Amino acid sequence: MNNQWWLEPCRVPDETARQAARHRDVQLTKPAGALGRIDALIPLLAALQGRQRPSVERVFVAIFAGDHGVAEEGISAFPQSVTGQMLGNFVNGGAAISVLAKQLEATLEVIDLGVATPQSLPGVRQVALGPGTCNFTKQSAMSAEACERAMQAGRDSVLRAQQQGSELFIGGEMGIGNTTTAAALACALLGCAPQELAGPGTGLDAAGMAHKCAVIERALALHAGPHDTYGWMQRVGGFELAALTGAYITCAQRGLVALVDGYICSVAALCAVRLNPDCRDWLLFAHRSAEPGHLAVLAALAAQPLLDLGLRLGEGSGAALAVPLLRLACALHDGMATFDEAAVAAKHS
Amino acid sequence: MNNQWWLEPCRVPDETARQAARHRDVQLTKPAGALGRIDALIPLLAALQGRQRPSVERVFVAIFAGDHGVAEEGISAFPQSVTGQMLGNFVNGGAAISVLAKQLEATLEVIDLGVATPQSLPGVRQVALGPGTCNFTKQSAMSAEACERAMQAGRDSVLRAQQQGSELFIGGEMGIGNTTTAAALACALLGCAPQELAGPGTGLDAAGMAHKCAVIERALALHAGPHDTYGWMQRVGGFELAALTGAYITCAQRGLVALVDGYICSVAALCAVRLNPDCRDWLLFAHRSAEPGHLAVLAALAAQPLLDLGLRLGEGSGAALAVPLLRLACALHDGMATFDEAAVAAKHS
Repeated sequence: MNNQWWLEPCRVPDETARQAARHRDVQLTKPAGALGRIDALIPLLAALQGRQRPSVERVFVAIFAGDHGVAEEGISAFPQSVTGQMLGNFVNGGAAISVLAKQLEATLEVIDLGVATPQSLPGVRQVALGPGTCNFTKQSAMSAEACERAMQAGRDSVLRAQQQGSELFIGGEMGIGNTTTAAALACALLGCAPQELAGPGTGLDAAGMAHKCAVIERALALHAGPHDTYGWMQRVGGFELAALTGAYITCAQRGLVALVDGYICSVAALCAVRLNPDCRDWLLFAHRSAEPGHLAVLAALAAQPLLDLGLRLGEGSGAALAVPLLRLACALHDGMATFDEAAVAAKHS
Repeated sequence: MNNQWWLEPCRVPDETARQAARHRDVQLTKPAGALGRIDALIPLLAALQGRQRPSVERVFVAIFAGDHGVAEEGISAFPQSVTGQMLGNFVNGGAAISVLAKQLEATLEVIDLGVATPQSLPGVRQVALGPGTCNFTKQSAMSAEACERAMQAGRDSVLRAQQQGSELFIGGEMGIGNTTTAAALACALLGCAPQELAGPGTGLDAAGMAHKCAVIERALALHAGPHDTYGWMQRVGGFELAALTGAYITCAQRGLVALVDGYICSVAALCAVRLNPDCRDWLLFAHRSAEPGHLAVLAALAAQPLLDLGLRLGEGSGAALAVPLLRLACALHDGMATFDEAAVAAKHS
């Protein structure tokens, strides 16, 4: 690895814009802070976008899809063919994220990083890293070179988003077996047991869960560390996880706000923050998912997500659902009258 | 009271539509229930709207404003003149709910039920019940007739909403002192102490909170029951609380879904459910507010709100913030492909 671009510095949030936003907020016709988390978003978005009145009208959603060799261990309720089939559903408008992106008037791009049942679909970007990762209970999930190419795919997506003038980046994922991969990677990085971080995914029963934990245990034993974050990503990670990691770091380096989706995306965010800690500033967290391990990953990131709706779909769908809250927060900050403008008395001094 | 319309039966949800919505949901290209609370909204909305594919595009927001005689006890951080001043801000587009209603393309109507500093404002509906309620630490807040007229004002608003073809009704409120009123009423109905249900409102400190609790205690001692729900509303209620109560019951009787806002609105919902228990079916709860007593009121209503964002503004603002979630839920249910349509494999059987 000659060019470790992910270690380069992140952009520094604009404290002047943050203060300007706070200054405006206290003049608006509401008790200070009465909109709670909605109010709190504004100084943060202002600092990240470098303007007193932030905006997230132009949203870019990138879905990274990849298959997982560990699926052959029988750790998912769905057959592996679904990953490739869903690529078509994404571009044909039938998937949840397709419907949400349309409603939000967001750009949606779909990147095939390597699936077990490849199909050439118009509208899907191809980054051929192979027919999925290798089964990490038997060998490393991917080569160092494949990991680097996957991260670069995430970076390229963010660069395209920025070229379009996007104001918010959402990364999504699709990959049968990827809650197993994410749990293995989070266990390695956080030093937790699989029972703490593995969940039912798309619908395992108790026996399926026990099997999933055993599979992760075998993988962790095979690859026993110490390894650095990059080493763990390569050994027990996934193509879409590496791409998301690269995307989040690039957002931070290029000054684009990223809205992180659920469990898989949060594990990628954890990798990103471990590789380049300053990128944490640029990550907003959309929701707490139904996957039980998400809580520990969010805690490790000191993340307080906006929504808690029991979502466990992936595809960036939870992040998309949170976009209207961000937009309404910006509209309130921009459009409300000040106490002076409205001739309304302020609080008793 | 000759015509106790609020006791008349509520509409019965449509079980056929509920089942039809469930039947469609399990065919959509996602693991069943993977969208958690979002998925769960659909059969409920379908049952209430009597159609497999519900919609909440046409939203009607009614803001009820009234002053509170108990404000003279010094229980608010803001002067009483703010209630009347905010009426102008609502219709001039500068208030939070004005901005939100515009963003949501919702109808916004503003009803002045009686404020201490009356002003004739174009665009504000006048229902003159007097310059606010009486100070309920000294006498009943309002006459039985005024309570009935306030409830009727809420009913009239819902009838206008329905005449416009609205698919969702949001009631909001404005009234300096109304967290004190709401806490007093909730204490009376739930048999709780003021310390359990009174909070900081728009920004009281600890001394202000202790004083607020003492004021409520005095009121509860003066009006010591037993009284029925209507009797308590009249003794320690508020104009806007009675209007919201009438509105919620009318929604249920006329078959219009109501989205309940924060603490004040939830206490009105409690009154509505105590007066006419079947109206509970028609109430969705938007958010859990920062007012600590809200939790107990929600529990008494077996309500699980969608959002938890530390809001404490009122005006219907929290309900407005939840509207995009309902709309996106409907769009997903309507627009997603089925497994068959998308040629995606379903779960392993």
